[in-house]
Amino acid sequence: MRRLILVLGAAACWACSPPEAGPVQAVKVAPGEIEPSEWAKAWPLHYLGWGMTREPGPAGKSRYKRGWDGRKTFDRLSEYPYLALLFNGWGLGVEYNEPRGHAWMLEEQVEHVDRSRLKAGGVCLSCKSPYASRLAKELGRDYYARPFDEVRARIPAKHRLLGVSCSDCHREDDASLRFDRDFTLGVALRAIGKDPAKLHPQEMRSLVCAQCHATFSIPKDKEKRSVGLFFPWQGGRWGRIPVETVIANARRNPEWTQAVTGFPMGFIRHPEFELFSYDSAHWNAGAACPDCHMPYAKAGARKISDHRIMSPLKNGLRGCLPCHSQTADELRERVFAAQDRTVSLLDRAGFAAATAAKLFELCHREQAKRGGLPGLDAALYARAKEFYEQAFYRLAFIGTENSAGFHNPAEALRVLGDAVAFAGKAEALLRQALAGAGVKAPAKVDLELSRCLDGRGERKLGFDLSVEIKDPFGTQANF
Amino acid sequence: MRRLILVLGAAACWACSPPEAGPVQAVKVAPGEIEPSEWAKAWPLHYLGWGMTREPGPAGKSRYKRGWDGRKTFDRLSEYPYLALLFNGWGLGVEYNEPRGHAWMLEEQVEHVDRSRLKAGGVCLSCKSPYASRLAKELGRDYYARPFDEVRARIPAKHRLLGVSCSDCHREDDASLRFDRDFTLGVALRAIGKDPAKLHPQEMRSLVCAQCHATFSIPKDKEKRSVGLFFPWQGGRWGRIPVETVIANARRNPEWTQAVTGFPMGFIRHPEFELFSYDSAHWNAGAACPDCHMPYAKAGARKISDHRIMSPLKNGLRGCLPCHSQTADELRERVFAAQDRTVSLLDRAGFAAATAAKLFELCHREQAKRGGLPGLDAALYARAKEFYEQAFYRLAFIGTENSAGFHNPAEALRVLGDAVAFAGKAEALLRQALAGAGVKAPAKVDLELSRCLDGRGERKLGFDLSVEIKDPFGTQANF
Repeated sequence: MRRLILVLGAAACWACSPPEAGPVQAVKVAPGEIEPSEWAKAWPLHYLGWGMTREPGPAGKSRYKRGWDGRKTFDRLSEYPYLALLFNGWGLGVEYNEPRGHAWMLEEQVEHVDRSRLKAGGVCLSCKSPYASRLAKELGRDYYARPFDEVRARIPAKHRLLGVSCSDCHREDDASLRFDRDFTLGVALRAIGKDPAKLHPQEMRSLVCAQCHATFSIPKDKEKRSVGLFFPWQGGRWGRIPVETVIANARRNPEWTQAVTGFPMGFIRHPEFELFSYDSAHWNAGAACPDCHMPYAKAGARKISDHRIMSPLKNGLRGCLPCHSQTADELRERVFAAQDRTVSLLDRAGFAAATAAKLFELCHREQAKRGGLPGLDAALYARAKEFYEQAFYRLAFIGTENSAGFHNPAEALRVLGDAVAFAGKAEALLRQALAGAGVKAPAKVDLELSRCLDGRGERKLGFDLSVEIKDPFGTQANF
Repeated sequence: MRRLILVLGAAACWACSPPEAGPVQAVKVAPGEIEPSEWAKAWPLHYLGWGMTREPGPAGKSRYKRGWDGRKTFDRLSEYPYLALLFNGWGLGVEYNEPRGHAWMLEEQVEHVDRSRLKAGGVCLSCKSPYASRLAKELGRDYYARPFDEVRARIPAKHRLLGVSCSDCHREDDASLRFDRDFTLGVALRAIGKDPAKLHPQEMRSLVCAQCHATFSIPKDKEKRSVGLFFPWQGGRWGRIPVETVIANARRNPEWTQAVTGFPMGFIRHPEFELFSYDSAHWNAGAACPDCHMPYAKAGARKISDHRIMSPLKNGLRGCLPCHSQTADELRERVFAAQDRTVSLLDRAGFAAATAAKLFELCHREQAKRGGLPGLDAALYARAKEFYEQAFYRLAFIGTENSAGFHNPAEALRVLGDAVAFAGKAEALLRQALAGAGVKAPAKVDLELSRCLDGRGERKLGFDLSVEIKDPFGTQANF
């Protein structure tokens, strides 16, 4: 009907300039509607883009973030084998794959990944289902603590495999941006003194992504049941949530016990927003996540943002070209120059932390075997443990961040350099403590990675040598 | 005369478009002329700019490269006190100041810096005097080996304090670029397969700077006399002279003995060209040194490059603005964001290397005191020594480079991250070796920096606390 009026209007106005092409919304989306095919009636092109996230990315375009490119599953624990040792002790150490597209989110979690990844309970739905906020509100404490399957069963049957979709980021009436996760992101914003009600539209364009692309902590009660979910931003401020702040908050909430050391640990995962927003070139230039990941494209007379969200490396760097005067090939080399360096230093940090971890294991084993190590200098051991944990959290920060450092190259390298420093100091003090207690550590520590990499989980996953990422500078071979 | 013709020509051509303003060169510079005031007759504005390098830079503009800003001499060994320990054993460990401008070069060396800096001999003139190439050709081996004062006395009296000037970079006939130092840079270029006769003009614009802004090694004979000077680029290629290549070449030429460890060492100094040209964003974008350091300015109807060469931070970032769309303030923040991170990680690398060095000192002292350490694991010690030296050279590479990492931020951080890794491993193995030999190392090693910082050289230089640069992220306080 509206379309008809538009056409008649245009005809009546024959002699004047044509009306500007505006959005055509023939259908209203009902308040609270979650079904994407209903949203599609109003926003068909955006829906098509979102649907394309079910497709694999093109193979061979990205060196380090290979998603589900060419329908191959990339096992991140085989890519970076030291992670298999360091994350061993909970779900992430069992199966940790490079992710598929947005539309797969919940389905992958439910049907494709080892079930040990769901142990934390209903809380795991927080980023995976558009029903998360409703469930959290309805169930209160039970949302976090009750078993994953039990909480998921409360989702309407047709949406029990529906991943992130329209309503996670958009208002039904005009598709303007909103964030749905006030119970996580809203709380976090208020904690850093940012009023969620007074956000610039460009800030919103990053924050809808930050609902899930940020790290979180899951506090536990004495019975190890999840009792909440929070973003460890306390003490940070807008544009300044450094790794040091994240660590200080995250480590106050032990979530798991690291198998190799026996230490109770917090965790840091996929801190994309934190890394990007801390003084990066693109953040400081005023860019938001979609500027790079959802470039505009022409669709007839209209301009729409690409809802097939992916790495710019995989779509011809279209998002880069409006701002940069270089060619796509030149820009690609810039990305690789930054990522190669991150991955090289990640290797150094990862193997150094893994070496320190194995020395703790040696220490604990000898203690158990000999009924204690009276010659062990307790102060040295305690300092080594603190240094080791500082290294581990920094490694987790960059090792789980999804840009191989590109979101903020210099900051990623700073964090990794510090990780190397903390790990090296931990190793140094622990070696001295061990030698003083009469325990001889080998000069080169065997990480016994196959013990962690092979036979993982229900499907007995193994080390996939074909995906291992080697130090692009070859420096790691010296160690 | 020529000017007159131009004026007459313009008058005669009243009705047509005015002739393009071209260079006016009333005077020819004689072949082989070195005296700048003679060049000034042909190129007065460039001469004025060069002359301005005698003036101090403005104070408070640069955080880390403070030159002779506001007429204050910044002692780099006080800025980065670990360098005082690590460079102790030769001239650089006695007095090492942030440099004044180009015109000061030789005068500063002769009249202002501790004379221990001249011990290598005439070879030290290679970057300081425009007579260097002539002297090297005339004197052959004696140029390198004979005492500095003796070789300098062969320079005409009026130029015995003349630093780098017109003829170092320009041809007399048309002021086009040439490099004067074929005996150093020319040899180095041929070694990496680059024909000095076939250079693109933009390549020349960086190479005239690289005559001096590159690292070098001074091979010695058995009597420790200098016998040559070469750039340690062998095995590298154009745009790819990585730190690993530089180290491999430099360490084959021990130039000094490090006091704290007693190890004979090569050295790396001010590798600006190497760092900048290895895959940096600006190099890859086709920029040359003068694009940033000698921005064009209007002078009447003409455009001339600013020969008052300095950090872009000190002249309003004029060199940045033609290419970047951001404001000078925004760009300055980008520079600081990169430099802050470099300086933070430099601290980590410097203190880690210094700690390892002091542990070697402890080891050697105990060996001397006890007449040997039979319990010392020789293999561990040897591995620790190799790791330590790898760390030291990387630290020297960035610690003496004159951009606080900005010439190539990600590469600087990669190099420093590796330095931290090598130093940490050295410390770890050495602590174990010491403990195994019954030598107790303290958990926190006292670097005894005042022993190196105070009472340096003839003028008994001391630690200048007012210039010390503290870790801008505060992370070093953890160690």
